[in-house]
Formats: sequence, C-alpha cells, structure tokens
Amino acid sequence: MRDVARRAGVGPSSVSRVLSGHPDVSERMREAVMSAVEELHYRPDLLARGLRSGRTGTVGFVVADISNPMVAQTITGAERRLREAGYSMLLTNSEGRTGQDSGRIELLEQRSVDGLLLLLSDERDADTVAALHDAECPVVLLDRDQPAGEPMTRVVFDHRSGMTAATRSLLGLGHRRIALLLGGPRRPTRERRRGVEEAIATVADAELTVFEGELKVAAGEGAARDLLDLDPRPTAVIAAGHVLCEGALLAFNQLGVRIPTDISMIGCDESPAAILHEPPISVVRRDMSEFGVRGAELLISQLEGAEEVVEVILPTEFVERRSCAPPG
Amino acid sequence: MRDVARRAGVGPSSVSRVLSGHPDVSERMREAVMSAVEELHYRPDLLARGLRSGRTGTVGFVVADISNPMVAQTITGAERRLREAGYSMLLTNSEGRTGQDSGRIELLEQRSVDGLLLLLSDERDADTVAALHDAECPVVLLDRDQPAGEPMTRVVFDHRSGMTAATRSLLGLGHRRIALLLGGPRRPTRERRRGVEEAIATVADAELTVFEGELKVAAGEGAARDLLDLDPRPTAVIAAGHVLCEGALLAFNQLGVRIPTDISMIGCDESPAAILHEPPISVVRRDMSEFGVRGAELLISQLEGAEEVVEVILPTEFVERRSCAPPG
Repeated sequence: MRDVARRAGVGPSSVSRVLSGHPDVSERMREAVMSAVEELHYRPDLLARGLRSGRTGTVGFVVADISNPMVAQTITGAERRLREAGYSMLLTNSEGRTGQDSGRIELLEQRSVDGLLLLLSDERDADTVAALHDAECPVVLLDRDQPAGEPMTRVVFDHRSGMTAATRSLLGLGHRRIALLLGGPRRPTRERRRGVEEAIATVADAELTVFEGELKVAAGEGAARDLLDLDPRPTAVIAAGHVLCEGALLAFNQLGVRIPTDISMIGCDESPAAILHEPPISVVRRDMSEFGVRGAELLISQLEGAEEVVEVILPTEFVERRSCAPPG
Repeated sequence: MRDVARRAGVGPSSVSRVLSGHPDVSERMREAVMSAVEELHYRPDLLARGLRSGRTGTVGFVVADISNPMVAQTITGAERRLREAGYSMLLTNSEGRTGQDSGRIELLEQRSVDGLLLLLSDERDADTVAALHDAECPVVLLDRDQPAGEPMTRVVFDHRSGMTAATRSLLGLGHRRIALLLGGPRRPTRERRRGVEEAIATVADAELTVFEGELKVAAGEGAARDLLDLDPRPTAVIAAGHVLCEGALLAFNQLGVRIPTDISMIGCDESPAAILHEPPISVVRRDMSEFGVRGAELLISQLEGAEEVVEVILPTEFVERRSCAPPG
C-alpha cells in the first residue's frame, strides 16, 4: 500500500480511504490512487480490509435471466462504472424463475457484498418482498415496481411512451386488429401493456388481443402461430420483448407469412437481427447500457453515504422501419 | 433441518450429508432431500455450514465476456446442472480484458467458493497461469488450453473439424481467395484458424487472408470493410465468431454487398439471426448449453472426490445454407 501511495503521490491514509469507499475523497484523488493500483497490480487483502472497514469492495447483481441478450449490455455498463469506482461485481442468475430471487439476494448478502443491484424475476413474489425488506445493505431496483409501502431507489424505463407511439403508428396506418405478445410478471410487461392499451382506447373500432407467456423465444414462436389462427386474423403484431420478436419471426418465416404484406410487425429493443432482417423490423428502442451505468451510479452514491430515495426515468423511442405497412 | 429430514423421510445426518456435498449419498437420497429443501424453503446457514464442513455449496464461474450472447447458454446449462446437485453459482465477468481473469479468480476464492468453472479471457496471461497454479479448490477449464505443464480437467470443442468442413465446402464451390475473421487470444481462435489453414493447405492455388481483432461486433464490421478493399477481393469470408459474423453482415448490408452473389459467407454458432437472414447464413454449429452442463458435471464429480484429470471433447458441425455459392 505504501508503494501505491508513493506512485499516486498521496499519503497511505488517502489510499486507504479511496479503497474503503470513504465518501470524503475527491474524484482526482480517487483517479490517482486507482491508476496507481492498476499500474502496480496492487490487490488489497479484501477480507482483512472487510474486517477493518466493514466493507468488501464488492457489489452483488441479481439478474432475472442471463439468457436474455439485452441483459448483458446492462451488466457490462454497470460493471464498467463500478470498476471505475473501485468495486468488483458478483453476479447471480435467477434463471427467470420466480422464487429464486430471494435465495440469490441472501446468497450475495452472505458473501458480504456492500450493496445490491436487482434485476428481479418478479418483484411481487412474497419471499422477494421479504428479502428486500430485510436487506441490510443499500439496494437499487432496476426497472421494477416498488414493493408495497417501501420506496426504494431505482432506475426505470418509460416503456409506455414508446409503446404508445408504436401503437399509434399502426393505428395511423389503418390497423384495427392488433396482437400484443407479452412475457414475464414484471414492471416492463405491465407498462408496455398499458402503453399499448392507452393508444388502442383512443380509437373506437380498434381491437387488441393479448398473448401472455414466458419471456422466451419458444413462447414468441407459439404465440405467433396462435395469432395466425384467429378469425379475423390480426393485421399487426407487437412483440413486447426481443426474444418474443425473434420467436415470432421464426414462426412467420417457417409458415411463409410475409412482413409487412401479410402482417405488420413491431419488436422491442434494438439488435443487429432487427436491423439485418429483410425487411428491417420497427422497434421500441432503449439504452440498456446506460440503464446499467445509472443503476451503478445510484448504488455508488448510496455506498458513499447518500440517503435519499432517488428515481431515474430513462426514455424509450419508437423507430419505424419497413416492417410496418397499411393492412392488405 | 429436522423438518427437512422428516419431510424427506430420512435422518438429520443424511440431510447434512446431502447439503455438504458428501460423496457417499445415493441419487435417490439427494433428490428426496433437495425436494424437501425446496418445498420447505429451507435455507441452511451457509456461513455456519461452511465453518463446519469447509464447504459453502457455491461454485464460482469466471466468464470472459458476458456480452457475448453465446455465453449465456453455457451459463444457463451449467447453472441448471449445478442447481440439481444442490449448488448455487456466483458469476464474475472479465469484460474480455486480459489481466482481469486472475483478479476474478481471487475474488471468488476469497468468497469461499467450493470450485471454479473458468471461461477465461486469455489462458496464457502470466497472472492467470499463476492464479490457476495457486488455486486451492477444484477447477474446470472451459475450452481453453492447459497452462504449461499442468494438466487440468476441461471441456473443449473440436473446432478444427467443423472449420475444416466449412473451408472444404468453399473450396469445393471453386473459391480460391478466402478471408478469415478472428477475435480473441484464446484456444477457440487458434483451433479455428488451424482448421481453416489445414483445409487451405490441401489446395495449391488457394489463398487465405486473416483479419485478427477483438471478438466484438465493431471489429467484425471493420474487418469486413477492410477485406472489400483488397485487390483482388476475397470471394468468400468465414467469420470465426457469432459477433464477428453480425458485424460483417452489418457492413455488407450498409455497403450493398450481396450474399452470396458478391461474396459467400460462413459464420460460427447457430442463432435466430443466422436462420432468419435472407439468405440464411451457413454456420459451424456447436451446443453451448451442453458445454455448460458437461463443465458443471466435471466440477461436481471433482467436488465429490474424483481426482483424475478428465478431458471431454464436444463436436462442432458445418451446416450449409444459401449464403454460399460458386464465386461470380
């Protein structure tokens, strides 16, 4: 540690303050110490440090379903910001299973993380609500509703405005029978549904059919097959999730259903697959990396002593592409 | 614990043996105890248990780059198998940065994991080799070369046979100028290159141009732009990685380069994007979920007392689609 102090041109106590996450440290001091730490490959004895300061320099991240490709961008964004602030990250996966979240929160708490980022499978699960209530470290919720009666710091997306814009665009093209594919018992699902329903409600003869299932490619595939059997058939479909959109496209592809000639299509979340598809798919876009960065920042400021409950709302945006056309 | 024993119809000592990962437990006993644990939402005090048995029931998984969508399938497969055996998983991400691996291994060891699954950024990094040498718990390497002089249990893919088949297929169509996009200083990159080079070497006038860079979408995009500037231009490209293939497709799409009329294309790893692309993209396919399952199984058997070094080799397979045609 003396070597680090010498290299950074500061006293050993400053090094110790930076490494223990002490709030009273200037950004310049932190940067000088952290780059000296990196140059010298210095690795503080975390356990000893934990015993002294009660801190371990580690943040836990509970992820609902790591097989969702959008989540990786959020993890990467959060991890980059945490690393800059001197924190390591431990991840757990709840495999999209309601009821796994509470166990994952406890697992991370037992491993003495300083704080938690939570991308929960189902924030209304009773065990999860209890685990949040009992959490002894700072917590940031990522795009989940507040557990009853307990305001918590969180980052959320404004899903409704993006979904309302997407639905209005379909209504403007003349669509009156629209199908909505939904997955997962979570805030994004509920907000996306509200956004679509609010737009539908403004047009008297517009009809919405909702297909709810898991947030998995296979569920999107199944729902797409089912909606084709409806009579009369919907003329447009909104897939409220990247994997649901992929599943629906696979089904349409196999069955020879042409986009947008036979059906118009809107997905959620930008991806090379949406851009490269012929025709390119209209999407409701959001910045998943920024989502992770902002979550990490809120957690870091709590770890540095901030006590107020903060809510950051990030935008979503409808991007129209050639997958939408007037109904045939 | 007494409740769990009663529910499972076994003695408390059997519950304790199952939960501590004792090797001398029948599969039936394990299942009875684990389903009682799940029904009763029983959560053993891991730290107390760790102090008694020296075990924590947790496995660490170091992931090179969680933003690679193929990796999620491996994590999910490994986690499912570990959960069946009563283990939880803690993940860390090295963000694809060489030099992060050793720190991540130490972080997990400090958190008292019972064993490690390692999908390393660069198995030849000196700090990583030292960390592997010093590891005090069982370790399974996932598709990485053995550190010098230290045989370690591992699961690998036979990349060479799939890549050789892919290259032969291009040569058979008449291609003589082939570009290969590679990323990452790891075993899969080296083996894929060897597979392609071995096939090229069998045809006297065949030429290979290799583009090496990061395993990122942007790197694939840049390499694809660069290869179009070559004179004479390659008539076929093999992208040795899912994200490189996506990047190359984005570049060709933007520049109006038609597949397979202007250039033939082969990617690595199956994905909805490869299947849905028009034309669908030929790929060298492998089972990323099975990869995780087998890694977990090798680790579990080490945790149950197995001492021999084991190597499991999983196949890869070339799937030809309409993205390949004779050169124009």
